[in-house]
Amino acid sequence: MRSGTILSILGWLLFFLGLILLIPMGLSLFYQDGSWVAFLASSGIGILVGGGLAFSFRPDQEIGHREGFCIVALSWILAAALGALPYFFSGKIPNYIDAYFEAMSGFTTTGSTILEEVEILTKSLLFWRALTHWLGGMGIIILSLAILPVLGVGGMQLFKAEMPGPTKDRLAPRIQDTARILWGVYVLLTLIEVLLLMLAGMDLFDATCHAFATMATGGFSTKTASVGGYNSAAIDYIIIVFMILAGMNFTIHFRILQGKVVRSLKNEELRLYMLVGFGATALIFITNWWYGQYDDPLQNIRYSMFQAWSILTTTGFGTADFDTWAPCAKTVLVTLMLLGGMAGSTGGGIKHVRALIFMKFTRVQIKKLIHPMAVEAIKLDGKKIPQDVVQSILGFLSLYMAVGITATIVVTLTGVDIVTGSTSVIATLNNIGPGLGGVGPAKNFADLPYVAKVVLTLCMVAGRLELYTIALLFVPEYWKDMRRPKTRWSSLP
Amino acid sequence: MRSGTILSILGWLLFFLGLILLIPMGLSLFYQDGSWVAFLASSGIGILVGGGLAFSFRPDQEIGHREGFCIVALSWILAAALGALPYFFSGKIPNYIDAYFEAMSGFTTTGSTILEEVEILTKSLLFWRALTHWLGGMGIIILSLAILPVLGVGGMQLFKAEMPGPTKDRLAPRIQDTARILWGVYVLLTLIEVLLLMLAGMDLFDATCHAFATMATGGFSTKTASVGGYNSAAIDYIIIVFMILAGMNFTIHFRILQGKVVRSLKNEELRLYMLVGFGATALIFITNWWYGQYDDPLQNIRYSMFQAWSILTTTGFGTADFDTWAPCAKTVLVTLMLLGGMAGSTGGGIKHVRALIFMKFTRVQIKKLIHPMAVEAIKLDGKKIPQDVVQSILGFLSLYMAVGITATIVVTLTGVDIVTGSTSVIATLNNIGPGLGGVGPAKNFADLPYVAKVVLTLCMVAGRLELYTIALLFVPEYWKDMRRPKTRWSSLP
Repeated sequence: MRSGTILSILGWLLFFLGLILLIPMGLSLFYQDGSWVAFLASSGIGILVGGGLAFSFRPDQEIGHREGFCIVALSWILAAALGALPYFFSGKIPNYIDAYFEAMSGFTTTGSTILEEVEILTKSLLFWRALTHWLGGMGIIILSLAILPVLGVGGMQLFKAEMPGPTKDRLAPRIQDTARILWGVYVLLTLIEVLLLMLAGMDLFDATCHAFATMATGGFSTKTASVGGYNSAAIDYIIIVFMILAGMNFTIHFRILQGKVVRSLKNEELRLYMLVGFGATALIFITNWWYGQYDDPLQNIRYSMFQAWSILTTTGFGTADFDTWAPCAKTVLVTLMLLGGMAGSTGGGIKHVRALIFMKFTRVQIKKLIHPMAVEAIKLDGKKIPQDVVQSILGFLSLYMAVGITATIVVTLTGVDIVTGSTSVIATLNNIGPGLGGVGPAKNFADLPYVAKVVLTLCMVAGRLELYTIALLFVPEYWKDMRRPKTRWSSLP
Repeated sequence: MRSGTILSILGWLLFFLGLILLIPMGLSLFYQDGSWVAFLASSGIGILVGGGLAFSFRPDQEIGHREGFCIVALSWILAAALGALPYFFSGKIPNYIDAYFEAMSGFTTTGSTILEEVEILTKSLLFWRALTHWLGGMGIIILSLAILPVLGVGGMQLFKAEMPGPTKDRLAPRIQDTARILWGVYVLLTLIEVLLLMLAGMDLFDATCHAFATMATGGFSTKTASVGGYNSAAIDYIIIVFMILAGMNFTIHFRILQGKVVRSLKNEELRLYMLVGFGATALIFITNWWYGQYDDPLQNIRYSMFQAWSILTTTGFGTADFDTWAPCAKTVLVTLMLLGGMAGSTGGGIKHVRALIFMKFTRVQIKKLIHPMAVEAIKLDGKKIPQDVVQSILGFLSLYMAVGITATIVVTLTGVDIVTGSTSVIATLNNIGPGLGGVGPAKNFADLPYVAKVVLTLCMVAGRLELYTIALLFVPEYWKDMRRPKTRWSSLP
């Protein structure tokens, strides 16, 4: 392990984050909300520690696989450590574990909160909270479409060939190309959403914060009542549209902007995503209608559609307390929680492409019983999927269940009831936000014991980094074995 | 599809079941409990319909794969249809759907009941209820160690080579050998348990019924309070030992009786099974101690151990209302529910061997991230596992999740709450018996809506037949395509 390379890159990360912290500081001075000292101190720590590391260590020309995993995992862990400081220094979240939970929830675009009342935060802190989502979302797009495909994690190799840009395997040019193209899309969509939300009646501040949280499929709102607090059909529908866009693979947006509309819409994963989202909306609508949840069918469709897409895309915004809905609607929502967004989006969860490949794989297995000798390849969008990608995806499912069950056992060990315990794990592991019971949409994570909060923070980062990245750190071989892998990354600039 | 063969074999099944129904009829006459007419009528129907089919159709010389699946699936479906008649004719269970639920719960060795009070049944009906378990268990041993390995279902191919007896691929001699050897073990263990339970104070009737339910990992008791109704430490510990034995692969018992003790105990699946069972006991013991559930540690160990093994082996006997235990103990029990017994036992669930292979597979996938080019085979007991077995097992997990989630959505659609809904599916799909909430150990399935009961009945048979067998019937290709598979079964005698 070349720790110099790792420390240097992480140093740069902290340094830039330190600089970014000056934005909410400026905002604090502008609003005169008194939080500027907290931001200044945090920024100073980021710039000093980060700058110190960045200038003390020089990255190698080559970055190996193993360094790559370490950098990815530590990026989120350290970003949250620094990002938690403004909450902590301002005294608004007096316990650092809580502040860390909130910051990790931001950077992982989860949206679970330990705040009983969001409004106790100053405007600049609310902005920082939304900004952590947006920055985390940027990180995730690059991670899932440029870094994980090269590292070969959890079937993301699938997207190796799909990436825009000329270089497919050398990481640094790849990251640069991807960042330029996809962040462009990300910024553009965010701007459009801000404008539309303002047209629908939000002020610039709220519109920006909500657009950040939507595009990152995060879910932090500037109100405790979340999007429901605005009680505006226009706002609800605008956010629904942008949640749907944020849960889509960003290369699709890029292709559509290039004019390749028809080809992009033929994407099998996209079709499943739309089918599941609107199918779930219909199922929840019928359930709500059957149990007389809403008198007005227009209101019913609005709340059902919002909640279905909010949960499916793992955004987690709320316009209704779905914990009071009929059991079937809740079961559907929990199923959506597991599924999550499309791969290459800012959404979390298992991802539709994996579910699709599971289904195809299972169908092949069933068919094999009839024709034991037949060999059938699994195809996606007409292309054969290599065996090792299928296996990587199946391994992901297995790991996912193991992590989920273990985390639930530990969380319930702290005395949390079984519904709260299991859905809090699902809500964090899939980067959604709210769960059911004690962590339902009208509640928050404040009252959970600290052991549970630490486990759930781990769940957020493990889920966000597609499990393998974090699991790897617990394999002794990763640390011991110094043999060099064959695939190489090029040096960063 | 050669339907003549299928009808003939199913005819024989019903015919023999008709004959077996004369046993509880005799018992009814002996106890003068008035149920003999119900048994006589049921027996008559079985003998007439079954005999009619058996003598009208002649089986082919060869039985193909596809006929095999059909026979297996219809065996349980028809056995329950006939087995439900005594409950229905006697008027003790006046609704046929309920009676069918109870009979399917018996033959699938599930042990879920729709009876609010078991004691309303006459002695002969209680005996029939226990007997359906025992017969179902016999069926399962043959199914999992002789039939499914040849059909190649869900990784059970693993046990193709392990079977005692000279013939490994030809089904009829294989079934005969397996039946002779393993049923010998099954009967022997049942007899020993009956004797021990009588020594511990049960009368012959109760001892027989409980031994039937234990060896089949079924869980029907002759008391509503289940085994807890006897309040005897000796009975509890005897049943614990026999539950552990019943949840083990029966070839291990056979090998141990042959004197190959050391080799048998080196079995990796057995080690995991013991580790999980006693590990869970310890975890539940600690939780119960921490939350002050029991004052007396001896009582705590007794109840914790009983419940851990009862659930892990999918027996489902109760000595304590674990729904009132601390959340962590319940989470552990739900995890045990999913795991189930060893393959080749009468237990249900995913089976330890599959969990073991999942874990090994996932470990290989994680290691691949460090050495992408390395090829590592998955080994079990020192032997390499063929790729197609691993895939078959991974497909099983995927199918399992899909069925579980779909069933939970449908059950909660009927208005059942989410804990009751999800655990009722887990309890039936894994052939356990009780779940949590409305179907907790102190409650029963009586109050569920009929739609839910039908879905759960389907779950029982789907889970029991390792999902693939039932899933196959829903694949159009299975019905359309008449090409002959390569592997052949020999004719039945």
